Order: sequence, then structure tokens, then C-alpha cells
Amino acid sequence: MPNASKRTQSMPSSPIRKLAGYAVEAEKRGVHVHYLSIGQPDIAAPESFWNEVGGHSGPLSYTASQGIAPLRDAVAEDYRKRGIRLAATDLLVTVGASEATYFTFMTCFDEGDEVIVVEPFYANYLGFAHEAGVKLVPISTRIEDDFALPRASDIAAKITPRTKGILVCNPSNPTGTIYTVDQLMELAKITKQHNLFFVLDEVYRDFYFGTAKLMSGLEIEGLDENVVVLDSASKRFSLCGARVGFFISRNRDLIAGALKYGQARLSCPTLDQEGVVSAYRRTPQSYFNAVRTEYMARRDLIVELLSKIPGVVCPKIDGAFYALVRLPVDDADKFCEWMLTSFELNGETVQMAPASGFYATPGLGKDEVRIAYVLEKDKLTAAIRCIGAALAKYPGAVRTSVASI
Amino acid sequence: MPNASKRTQSMPSSPIRKLAGYAVEAEKRGVHVHYLSIGQPDIAAPESFWNEVGGHSGPLSYTASQGIAPLRDAVAEDYRKRGIRLAATDLLVTVGASEATYFTFMTCFDEGDEVIVVEPFYANYLGFAHEAGVKLVPISTRIEDDFALPRASDIAAKITPRTKGILVCNPSNPTGTIYTVDQLMELAKITKQHNLFFVLDEVYRDFYFGTAKLMSGLEIEGLDENVVVLDSASKRFSLCGARVGFFISRNRDLIAGALKYGQARLSCPTLDQEGVVSAYRRTPQSYFNAVRTEYMARRDLIVELLSKIPGVVCPKIDGAFYALVRLPVDDADKFCEWMLTSFELNGETVQMAPASGFYATPGLGKDEVRIAYVLEKDKLTAAIRCIGAALAKYPGAVRTSVASI
Repeated sequence: MPNASKRTQSMPSSPIRKLAGYAVEAEKRGVHVHYLSIGQPDIAAPESFWNEVGGHSGPLSYTASQGIAPLRDAVAEDYRKRGIRLAATDLLVTVGASEATYFTFMTCFDEGDEVIVVEPFYANYLGFAHEAGVKLVPISTRIEDDFALPRASDIAAKITPRTKGILVCNPSNPTGTIYTVDQLMELAKITKQHNLFFVLDEVYRDFYFGTAKLMSGLEIEGLDENVVVLDSASKRFSLCGARVGFFISRNRDLIAGALKYGQARLSCPTLDQEGVVSAYRRTPQSYFNAVRTEYMARRDLIVELLSKIPGVVCPKIDGAFYALVRLPVDDADKFCEWMLTSFELNGETVQMAPASGFYATPGLGKDEVRIAYVLEKDKLTAAIRCIGAALAKYPGAVRTSVASI
Repeated sequence: MPNASKRTQSMPSSPIRKLAGYAVEAEKRGVHVHYLSIGQPDIAAPESFWNEVGGHSGPLSYTASQGIAPLRDAVAEDYRKRGIRLAATDLLVTVGASEATYFTFMTCFDEGDEVIVVEPFYANYLGFAHEAGVKLVPISTRIEDDFALPRASDIAAKITPRTKGILVCNPSNPTGTIYTVDQLMELAKITKQHNLFFVLDEVYRDFYFGTAKLMSGLEIEGLDENVVVLDSASKRFSLCGARVGFFISRNRDLIAGALKYGQARLSCPTLDQEGVVSAYRRTPQSYFNAVRTEYMARRDLIVELLSKIPGVVCPKIDGAFYALVRLPVDDADKFCEWMLTSFELNGETVQMAPASGFYATPGLGKDEVRIAYVLEKDKLTAAIRCIGAALAKYPGAVRTSVASI
């Protein structure tokens, strides 16, 4: 029989999704699983979206490959309201920010090119980089430093003749870290100096709990040709299942190049695009305020509860809706699997994402997990109680205080 | 400034979509454009779909990367009703058949591998092959032979040590050709003998106007490990904009491999998947019968009308909803562009897809176009009248009868 391709055999599995089968099995045994593994909020999407997608008839047509004009207009206008100049032609609608990420790797980089990425990073960057044959070169950040960005000189030291870009996620998935204006400007300086692309994944920009300015890559002056921003409707409107994202750049060649990949796949989901136009146009500010207030309360809750569990390290979290947490365990992959296969507390357990898959450097993140605080507070409390109880029972737990130093 | 990747610069543009800008311009001038360029039917989607997608609220969640279970069940059951054994686990839901095609190139083939493909072929195979670094090796078929498949020995002669697969579209986009059971069995024999993958794009299987059996690749005995079938809800239910397709194989390694790419992009559009379940479960046979009858009438109409235009060659069409037609012109790319930029008949013109992009062999298809007969009969009549009038006026028309021999 013919074999699957070699690249498929070496394609990394998603650390976020690879435990899904165990969770299904747990549910079949009657165990309730709290899903802290995936960034899928329980917050309602705006009514404006739902009002738009119902009540149609007729054929459901393809759209333009670049996305429907009202959506490109609405997104550009939304940026302009935030004081960021952007034309509708500076963006393409994509099948989620996932596809925007794929387009970025294909359009900006060739096989063998290197991209510097702040580690830990969104795990699926590894998958898309693998598909595109691009090498991710990690700059490691550490939980002990609240995942703060290293000095510019340390980053510049990673540059080789094959380096073609720098990729950061701000606010960061999986750490919740925010990069300051000064830090972004340092990175901008490096990208300009070395003629690199500066890719900023900003899908969590609505989930920012600080007071200092959260700067978009699109606000960096003089870097129009270098900057690509990835954005999404999924997180902003609790519309993960709508698969509507955005590839944004003022570099005309990149937009034209990415559109070729867009034309090959024809178009994005039509109904979702129409619903998202309505969400952009007709969602009141009170919706966003309420969502932000809710996430801040959840953040405060999980930081408080996790910090009470012996040996657990929960760093400072300023944005997104994730915490990258150190657990007193031998191997977080095994612990997460064990929680689904061999543990329950009053008929409940928790699925988390083991953090090793969020690092490119082998061996890092082995005792860390990513927790998405996307459930309501009662459920989060129950879930973290489960984690505490599991740690007390887990055969591979590390019971000295060493792990928490 | 940094440059777009080399692979992007060499990525082919879609011949189906590259004229879209000219059509928009024509419409801005007040010219009505008949779109025969793209396989986007004007037939209404089943009410069952529309009834399902409205009336929701709450968050819109991701689904499992392999697609929602009710949809995988419904599709597998539909195959079983047609007498084809298939389990829900033999298929993945994809973002249209487009993504199923991409998954196939990535999962089955490595960079530098060769895939034999019957030419002319669906143009976007070229784009996906380019993305995957796979070389398409064409077996040419000719309009003079109604695009009939060459002899097995001619096909086998194309096989090299790098050949890893054979790809056919049945019924064929862009020619409407049907491959017989005997022809498919010959190809199956070659794939088995040389340990190749046999990829069958069957998205047009509901649009078949003949009486002899239309065989699916899934009906070939003893070839479970080799066969991949691409299927779609887009054409079947006039739901092009729903972006729901299927990657189907009984080869477990391929399903597991393709799922890795699926997990990287998280999931397919949720609402569309739910609507398509309903379309599978609750669309009466009368819907399909009416659609088939309508397309047969349209096929008969365009064959009749095109054959009356001097110098036009319209071959036999047994399925899909396309005709690959020879026109008495110097260059069909130029002619199609000219029709949008410089021609109108009573305020109307036509967009067609130049056929050169459907060939891998340079120089072939230069005087051919693909016509999608996806409009109602009055509009088709008007559109073909436009084409006839345009040919009579076009400066690059070939006025001898040579072109039609």
C-alpha cells in the first residue's frame, strides 16, 4: 500500500486537540469534562450576528476571494475608529485567523526561511510553518519573568542570513503577556534594519486588562511594507465557529500574493461573512465592555485559586484569556491525559492543553499547561478544584517545593 | 522593503477568478454581465438548509476538526444508500472540496512527487499542487475526441520513479466528460501495479445525464488503501458559499494524516455544517430530480446554440455543468478580457473562463473557454447571443474555417 507523505508523518499534532479523544471517552463514562483546553468562550455572540444569518432563501453563492466588500469596509472603518488608518483594500477576509496565518507563512516566506518567534507561542504556528517548510527560531521567555520579552540584543543575535521575519502574538496566546510600545518599537527597529517581515497576531486585542497603551503593529510609522497583522472575528464576538479572520497589510505585493492562495480556495463562508458585517456594524459598545469585565473577573478568580494550590506557579496575566501555568508534575502531557483517563472528582474532570507543544525548544514547558478561562466563574471554580485534587492524587506529582521556586 | 516569497511570485493565478476585476468595472459602467465563468448555480438551495441555519443564539463554537458527528454520519449513510460501504470515520469534513484537494496534495504527496492528471483539468489543482510543491504531469485529451481518455498504455508511459498518484475528475470539470467503468478499472489497475494513490474528484456526481453506470472510486474492489475521493455539498445543494466538502478514504493513515492539517486550522464553519446535515437528512428526491432535469435542458440548449455560431466547436457533454468550447479566436484570454472591457450587446456582456489555465501543457487550450451553464435558460440564450455577436466583431477573430476542423 502507498504511504502517506513524509511531511505528514513529521507534521506536529495539535497539543490543543490531541487529547480530544480522551475527553470524548471520559464523557462516555459519564464524567463531566470542564474544557479549559481550547479558547472557546461560553459568552453569547452579539444578537446582531444571529439576526443576520437567519431568514434567507435561494442559492448560497461564493463570494469574492478577498471577502465581501461590506465586510472589508466594516473592518477598515473599525480600525479607523481606533485611530488607525486602513483601507478596505489593505485586508483580505480569511477562513479564520488560522488561514490568515497560513497565508502569511506562504506569502512572506520560502521553504528554508527562518522566522523568529517569541516562545511559548500559539501551537498551531508550528503546524503552518511545517506546511510551508519554514523554520521557527524561538526566543525563549520564562514563567519566572512573567514571560517578559528578552533584550533586543538577544533577539538580534538570532538573526541569520535565512531570517525573513519576526512573529509575535500580542496579547499573547498562550501566556496573556502584553508587549509594550517600547518593546514593539525595538522589534520594529530590528525588522527595519534587517529588512524582515514583522508579523503580529492581534486576535486577542479586545481582551486587554491593563491601562498603558496596547499598540497595534499597524500603528508603527514607517513600517508599512514590513507589517502583517492577523485579526479575527472569532474571539472578538465569541464566533469561533464562524471562521472569519483577516490578513492585513499595507504592502500591496503581499495582499496581491496572498490573494492568489485565496483564489485557489475560492472563498470564505458566505453566511458567516454576512453575519460578521452585522456584528461589526450593530454591536453596541456595552457588549464589549461587559465581555471585558467578565474576563477580568475570571482572570482574577483563576489567579487567586491557582495560587492557593501548593507548587502551582501562575504568572501575571494582562490580556487574552489564557494562563500558562507551572504544575508540580513530572510531565504535563501525562498529567493532562491522566486527568481524562484515570481521575474524577464528584464525577467531574478537566481538559487542559499541555504546554510542551507551545515551545519549539525541546524539553521546555514540560511541567506547564495552558488554561483557557473561558467558562463562567462557578465552573472555573469547580474546574480548578478538580485540578488541585488531581495534583494531590497524581502518581507523577512532584511533592517537594522545588518546582515552585 | 522585503519581497513576497518566490513561491508566491510563481503561484499561478486562478483563470476562473483573474478576470473578476474587469467584470466589476463593466458593471460599474452599467453593463450587465452574464457570469458563465464560475460554477455557481442560480438554483435554490434546499429549504432544509435554510430552516436549520436560522433561529440560533449564544456563542458559535468550534466543532471537532474532523467535522460534526451528525454530518459525517449523514454523508456515510448517503453513500451506503447508493450501495457504497462507507463508515463515518472514513471521511473528514473540509472547508469546501477546495480544502479536501489541498489535504490530498499535502497528505499523499511530498515535494517533488509527480501526479498524473487528465488534462484539461480543474484549474485550481495547479494552485494546490504549487502550494504543496507537487508536479502535475498531464495526459492530454482533445476536444476533437470529445476529451476521451487516452489508452492505458499511453498513461502508463507517463510513470516515472517520482510518480505517486493519478488524479481524475469524474464527471469532469471543465469538460463534462464521464469516465466509464472500464476506463476507471484500467486506471485502477495501473495505480495498484505501481503502488500509487488514485484520487477521484467526484463533486459533480449528481450532475450526470447518461444511462450507463457512473462509478465512484469507492466502488473499486481491492483498492481501499489507494483511493481518495473528493466530495462536496456545494454543488449538490447549490451551496457553493457554505464551504462544506469531504475528504474520503478507507486508508486509515491518510485520514489520520489529513486530520493533522485539519487540527492546525481548528474546524470548518459550524452553521454551514449544521445546515448541510439538514440538507442531507431532509431534502426530498424530487429536489434532485428537478435540478437534474433543469441542467439537462440547459445542456441541450447551450449545445444547440453554440453549434450554430460559425467556427465554434462544442463537444459532447455528459455531466457536470460545464462545456469546454473552442472559439474561432487568436487567444481566448484576450477575447474574454475584451468581452468585459470593450464589448456589449444591448448593455450586456459575458464573463467566461479562458481554458489555457486548465492545461498544464504550455500552448494548449489557447482558443478554448470554459462555459458554466449555471444560469436559467433565458439568460443562457442571451449570453450565448452575446458571445456570437462578440465573435463577429472581435478584432482577433479567426475568420477561416480552419479553427473549427
